[in-house]
Amino acid sequence: MNPTSHVWLNGRLVPSEQAIVSVFDRSFLYGDGLFETIAVRGGQPVRWDAHIERLVHGADFLRIQLPFEPDVLRTGAERLIESTALQSGTLRIHLSRGVGLRGYSPRGANQPTVLVTAHPAAPGSGDFHSWRLKTASFRIAAGDPLAAHKTASKLLQVLARAEAETAGADEALILNTDGNVVESSSGNLFWIEGQTLHTPPVSDGLLPGVTRGAILELAPAAGLTAFGTTAKPDRLLRSDGAFLTMSSLGVVEIAQLDGIPLPSSPHARNFWERLRSL
Amino acid sequence: MNPTSHVWLNGRLVPSEQAIVSVFDRSFLYGDGLFETIAVRGGQPVRWDAHIERLVHGADFLRIQLPFEPDVLRTGAERLIESTALQSGTLRIHLSRGVGLRGYSPRGANQPTVLVTAHPAAPGSGDFHSWRLKTASFRIAAGDPLAAHKTASKLLQVLARAEAETAGADEALILNTDGNVVESSSGNLFWIEGQTLHTPPVSDGLLPGVTRGAILELAPAAGLTAFGTTAKPDRLLRSDGAFLTMSSLGVVEIAQLDGIPLPSSPHARNFWERLRSL
Repeated sequence: MNPTSHVWLNGRLVPSEQAIVSVFDRSFLYGDGLFETIAVRGGQPVRWDAHIERLVHGADFLRIQLPFEPDVLRTGAERLIESTALQSGTLRIHLSRGVGLRGYSPRGANQPTVLVTAHPAAPGSGDFHSWRLKTASFRIAAGDPLAAHKTASKLLQVLARAEAETAGADEALILNTDGNVVESSSGNLFWIEGQTLHTPPVSDGLLPGVTRGAILELAPAAGLTAFGTTAKPDRLLRSDGAFLTMSSLGVVEIAQLDGIPLPSSPHARNFWERLRSL
Repeated sequence: MNPTSHVWLNGRLVPSEQAIVSVFDRSFLYGDGLFETIAVRGGQPVRWDAHIERLVHGADFLRIQLPFEPDVLRTGAERLIESTALQSGTLRIHLSRGVGLRGYSPRGANQPTVLVTAHPAAPGSGDFHSWRLKTASFRIAAGDPLAAHKTASKLLQVLARAEAETAGADEALILNTDGNVVESSSGNLFWIEGQTLHTPPVSDGLLPGVTRGAILELAPAAGLTAFGTTAKPDRLLRSDGAFLTMSSLGVVEIAQLDGIPLPSSPHARNFWERLRSL
């Protein structure tokens, strides 16, 4: 999934090869920033408002002043989609605290950087996927308030994903320090038991994705009662099926966990279809 | 502590205002990188070999191929020190995985970015400091293998430091998810009990700093026996004195923890003096 010809950087369209930031930008030096990934279908961002709400909430938490109003971002995103003729794929919005003084203290960093990039859909990304997961050796701090934000400090997720791929799996399942399941490197986790739908609660240390929210809204119509449930990984193996949610692919079924097959629930594909028609 | 006129970027000296990276660099997008900060005294990097050893070890852990041999980095650092006439201050070496594909997977990112920056000493940085610490609300995952590396994903440390400063303190004391003390946002922790010197063990989830190693080597000559000790914060309050170690300032005494004064141990200042004469 390569970037397109242009990006939107600090208020203007820029050719991708000229899209640069200072080496003193704090997102480069310390991962001091946030981002959102937003699906694009039919040339339109999907669930834009929910993503922007989360970005604004995250910026408040990091105490970064968003330098553009949400409607300026929206206009920028639309210009980017138009100029790159993006029909189907992903928008990524990145907010950095910008350049500051040396050291962790954010004092003096008063000019945040905002970047919007467009990425055409990878071949096959419109299909229903079924993935093999590997439990990561890296664990998230249980109850970590930072885990609830899509921050630019994602090396744990990078290494968990790399570890899974090296082992021949598609994605990593990440546990917290209490040994409970929380999420995958880039998606939220659900599992089904009879007529109940379970997902780890935010308090266990996870990022409540926009697609996770959409699934919780769709559950009653699918005859499922949803619960926030703290669980060990073996509970997935005893379930009637499990899946991940993410903005780019929607719903991805979990076929295996650490080489052990999971049952296939018809709910996973049904949710995937429902999401695509919203 | 502002940067100097030039930086060393991917093998050449570049004016600071032209020192740029792509917005698609993974250290900017995901904090996918590592760094080292090295004190400079009398125009010479201090404990260079130990820092480079740690950088190489970290690059192995992240599976980033260092694109320059250590002696090329050394030559680059010397050219930077010479061209910026840096006598006293800090060198910072930053290694990023470089540009890759979209998403956490590091596949396809095969051209790492290496940056060396020079920062003159801030006024007063040659003095012996005594700081007020505040316990951070953010906790490190106990036993996190990533915590042992100086990664570019440091938002937790940024926010812990900001929280401390907002509360009128100088620095944050960070606990792990077991509630044990591990380090400050940018330094290692020591405390003294009679003739024993204690520091949290690496297995509790911390970055074993180069200056920490130097203090452990100096302890016997100071008549102290050193232990790696797992402890709750109240143990610091009952100690005979506590201090932090960091490359830039050496030894910094802890004057207060959450508003409660700590005793002043002569060992803190003695170690500070010994480090400066090495």
